[in-house]
Amino acid sequence: MRDKARYLARLKRIEGQARGIHRMVDEDAYCIDILTQISALTSALENVGLRLLEDHLSHCVVDAARRSGPEGEEKIAEVSQAIARLVKS
Amino acid sequence: MRDKARYLARLKRIEGQARGIHRMVDEDAYCIDILTQISALTSALENVGLRLLEDHLSHCVVDAARRSGPEGEEKIAEVSQAIARLVKS
Amino acid sequence: MRDKARYLARLKRIEGQARGIHRMVDEDAYCIDILTQISALTSALENVGLRLLEDHLSHCVVDAARRSGPEGEEKIAEVSQAIARLVKS
Amino acid sequence: MRDKARYLARLKRIEGQARGIHRMVDEDAYCIDILTQISALTSALENVGLRLLEDHLSHCVVDAARRSGPEGEEKIAEVSQAIARLVKS
Repeated sequence: MRDKARYLARLKRIEGQARGIHRMVDEDAYCIDILTQISALTSALENVGLRLLEDHLSHCVVDAARRSGPEGEEKIAEVSQAIARLVKS
Repeated sequence: MRDKARYLARLKRIEGQARGIHRMVDEDAYCIDILTQISALTSALENVGLRLLEDHLSHCVVDAARRSGPEGEEKIAEVSQAIARLVKS
Repeated sequence: MRDKARYLARLKRIEGQARGIHRMVDEDAYCIDILTQISALTSALENVGLRLLEDHLSHCVVDAARRSGPEGEEKIAEVSQAIARLVKS
Repeated sequence: MRDKARYLARLKRIEGQARGIHRMVDEDAYCIDILTQISALTSALENVGLRLLEDHLSHCVVDAARRSGPEGEEKIAEVSQAIARLVKS
């Protein structure tokens, strides 16, 4: 994986955000403030997902497309399902 | 475009759904019922988008990946931006 | 409904956008351009939905809350389901 | 907050999911499997957000609506913005 250290740093931050939301609920923070943090965390996760998707397309999908045979099509079907899950979640 | 007739039929149905929502507002339908139709139309649009995306990956992106040079990377960047717009909309 | 004329005008525009997407597919427009229009239409629909939701909360839900009895709770459950459909679509 | 223990348990699970995604990246798991976990975590967060929203509507918004004066409207505007952030994230 390209930029692995960067992904790990972003995911550490995401873990910290999840812990922060737990703490807010524990300390009876105001609902709307908790919701704001939930939206921020959802966006951060989506951004990591979109970046992973782009890397996956650049590497695995492009490699598979270059080989002949059915592997390219399988990779396209697989990544399309992953995109659908991301769009619908 | 593969299955063009099928896309056109789905988009005709989507136009009909949009007209139906306009009529519901015009006839003072209950808010919640209008919202249900808006969610259904949003899902129908997303499904057309996801299908188009899969076709685009299977054709344009795979073709570009098979040619050497920077065209493959440009196509990946372009489709990744389209996916991000779909995820965030 | 407050601002009914404004909702109708926005929904007319949305119908026009749906017709435009149908035309783009019919005329074999570039996939990515069609996807851009699908994302724009999805956002326009979501914005109408969010506005309707706010109006519904201001009127129906607030009215029900002011009456005593179980009607307020039923309205809250109903609107919460509508919000969930909108978030998940 | 009603059901505080239940929220805390769900958020603990969410923290565990975030840690799991970090570990998957660290151990070079397959992209598509990481994306599946990101979608699952996004859905889990959205579900907590929707539940919090419903509790907030049942309590804070209903209470404010019962008091006379502008406080009800302010609460509706505030919660509507939170809903919009959740829909758009």
